[in-house]
Amino acid sequence: MNVRNPRTGEFDYEIFPLSNDELKNKINALREAQNEWKEQSLKFRIDALKAWKETLEIQKDLLSEALIVDTGRKLETSMEVDFFLNSIDEWCNLAQGFFVESVKEKSSIISLDKQSQFVPYSVIGIVAPATFPLFYAILDAIPALLAGCVVMVKPSDLTPRFAEVLLNSFAELPQIASVLSVVNGGAETVFELTKLCDKICFTGANDSVKDILRVANESLTPVDLELFGKNIAIVSETAEIERATSAILWGSAFNGGQSCNSIESIYVHRNIYHQFLSRLVGKANLLEFTYPHLETGQIGPVISEKQVEIINDLLADAIHKGAIIKAGGRECEELGGGYYCRPTVLINISPSMKLLQEENLAPLLPVITFFNLDEIAELNNIDFKGSAAIFAGTEAEALQMAEKINVKTISINDVTLKSLLPEINAIRFNKFLKKKTLLINNQSEKSSWWY
Amino acid sequence: MNVRNPRTGEFDYEIFPLSNDELKNKINALREAQNEWKEQSLKFRIDALKAWKETLEIQKDLLSEALIVDTGRKLETSMEVDFFLNSIDEWCNLAQGFFVESVKEKSSIISLDKQSQFVPYSVIGIVAPATFPLFYAILDAIPALLAGCVVMVKPSDLTPRFAEVLLNSFAELPQIASVLSVVNGGAETVFELTKLCDKICFTGANDSVKDILRVANESLTPVDLELFGKNIAIVSETAEIERATSAILWGSAFNGGQSCNSIESIYVHRNIYHQFLSRLVGKANLLEFTYPHLETGQIGPVISEKQVEIINDLLADAIHKGAIIKAGGRECEELGGGYYCRPTVLINISPSMKLLQEENLAPLLPVITFFNLDEIAELNNIDFKGSAAIFAGTEAEALQMAEKINVKTISINDVTLKSLLPEINAIRFNKFLKKKTLLINNQSEKSSWWY
Repeated sequence: MNVRNPRTGEFDYEIFPLSNDELKNKINALREAQNEWKEQSLKFRIDALKAWKETLEIQKDLLSEALIVDTGRKLETSMEVDFFLNSIDEWCNLAQGFFVESVKEKSSIISLDKQSQFVPYSVIGIVAPATFPLFYAILDAIPALLAGCVVMVKPSDLTPRFAEVLLNSFAELPQIASVLSVVNGGAETVFELTKLCDKICFTGANDSVKDILRVANESLTPVDLELFGKNIAIVSETAEIERATSAILWGSAFNGGQSCNSIESIYVHRNIYHQFLSRLVGKANLLEFTYPHLETGQIGPVISEKQVEIINDLLADAIHKGAIIKAGGRECEELGGGYYCRPTVLINISPSMKLLQEENLAPLLPVITFFNLDEIAELNNIDFKGSAAIFAGTEAEALQMAEKINVKTISINDVTLKSLLPEINAIRFNKFLKKKTLLINNQSEKSSWWY
Repeated sequence: MNVRNPRTGEFDYEIFPLSNDELKNKINALREAQNEWKEQSLKFRIDALKAWKETLEIQKDLLSEALIVDTGRKLETSMEVDFFLNSIDEWCNLAQGFFVESVKEKSSIISLDKQSQFVPYSVIGIVAPATFPLFYAILDAIPALLAGCVVMVKPSDLTPRFAEVLLNSFAELPQIASVLSVVNGGAETVFELTKLCDKICFTGANDSVKDILRVANESLTPVDLELFGKNIAIVSETAEIERATSAILWGSAFNGGQSCNSIESIYVHRNIYHQFLSRLVGKANLLEFTYPHLETGQIGPVISEKQVEIINDLLADAIHKGAIIKAGGRECEELGGGYYCRPTVLINISPSMKLLQEENLAPLLPVITFFNLDEIAELNNIDFKGSAAIFAGTEAEALQMAEKINVKTISINDVTLKSLLPEINAIRFNKFLKKKTLLINNQSEKSSWWY
């Protein structure tokens, strides 16, 4: 499979998906290694991961370089790599609090005591998106490894270049190399992994999920989904306009809008609409492409060529239905072979516009007014997987607004790109563990048995 | 749809599945009622359930009578009804501990505080099996209602008669009647419910799951599965034989083996095999059918006619492959129109026999010897959803054996039919709640935004 460079448009890299047999052999080898890995102490596993981290620190530049070619952007890559390296330590700390020995205790039935044991799944398959290729490839891998699972990561076929560097980073650490692996490939590889692994962790867009679930149904493989959502911002009449516009612009346009948490629609109270819009447009116009120089500007290229079509289509549809563009352009711009999308502020939005319904990975900022929350139709149809950012003059007001909004994460006077705090994700350990309950008969008398 | 009476074999009852539109209207009405129900205090919901329990106490005999016709057995029905009534109080107590207000706390990012809120799913659809028709219909309904969900229950189409009594029990309690409903129907009704509800809780056999999952994939409805498993007993050389044989016989044959937790294969240490077998056979031969009188005997009719075929087929296959029957018969017996299966002890078992692989709802007790745990092939292929009962002379030895057995519930010197302790199921509340995380910016300074 040929892979496009998002800055040059050239297909300058090739990946060679494994045959089903090769993949099967790799998974079998991982599964074999899990027998020992799961029996090791947590300390052993932490030490192994920390040794890996040391090597990664040394090879950090190589890793960054590959990711920069994969994604066409530099600043975000450096943040991503640092975040990943720090997260190894954070996960290790969290694990020490999480994996404590359970003790036997009384149950509500007098003749039974109870105790629980956690059993790790064996092979975890991770299917990662292109938005933050390293971060999402590894976010689940570290807690899974700490839990005693072994892990096969499949990066997006749009951003496969870092896989090789990652593999090299533990080539000389046989312990990590035996329990963690990375393969490149496309949809076929995902399907095969779904059949072969004991659990799949999928992060990405809704549209590819159904096919995976279909395969998973046949093999009865559990699939853990983290889907992109339609994330919204809501700005109350009392909100501080400078803060709200700065945060929302960043929340929508950071990483060129290519983030599962990026804000995709903005609801502003009618009474502050004009001031809000003028500040948002003013700030959006200050942002520049990272072209021709990687080091300048804030907005990198659109990684996926398919997204370029989607973005152009969403804009054309909105304009056709009456939207007015206050900042940005009518379509993506081609510069040096790459496609770039300006932070685009749109007004005169109507509910039929596709950009209110369909996911996008672009810095599109449709601004819609409201007078009270109940009018916001999108709130009623919202799916729980998204997030919301609420801006209001007081925390009390914001909390009251939050009551009405059923999404997974709500940021108050901030945007939710930060919502991947490890502590909030401590629950991730649970994904990789099966709970085993022991019920211990503590009495010498018989129970209610017949004879 | 005509419904068979398991004692007489006559089709003496009829159910009339709702049309898709009728079902939709019912679900819509429930969904409407949820808006108020979820806003009520926990105390309000507990009071409503306790008022229902009072009515149920009064109508207990009616409920039992319907269930006795549904299942053809009396003693188990009376246990089931009592268990259900007691569980209402237990769930209410557990809820008071579970639903506590969350408070704002610091997060690991200095500028963010965090807080969580739980949001109930709206409409829960419960698909119940025939094994314990009332218990499984209601096991999830009570915690779901306490969590603020509304519930539609669909009993098995083999045991639909109690539905009417259940509906009548809250006909004069408008609050319960608005948030809980029961419909009868077959597979079509299950598929429609899957499309219409926000979450499906399914208890039953593996074979009907794939079709439901196929529908659920299309509608992206989450499905919570509690599947029947292949449950095993393991008897160590040091086990107390009287205890082990009594417990295992009961664990296999209680409710005629029609229980998702019933023991389906028995591994006995070679050194105690002969004593074990002789006591097991002796005790199995003491059990009698509840025919001609409901009040006598221990083994009721096979509820499902389809199971009769499965049981006869499993026995024929085993006998054909060399199994020897030490107690029980070669097939189900027809008595007065109903089918009955004797507790059937089989030896000379080989791994190719279908009764080691396929689920059954019958008191079949294949006894297999082992010398050390590693020889037990079934242990290596075991799916985690089942359970195991371990019998050993000391708790320490049993716990050591438990380490090697990856199933959800392990009973030590007891059988797992008791594993539905409410406290172990407190986690059930989580099934009905979506967790909402609030991240609150606590600082006046800007974050890492651009402008």
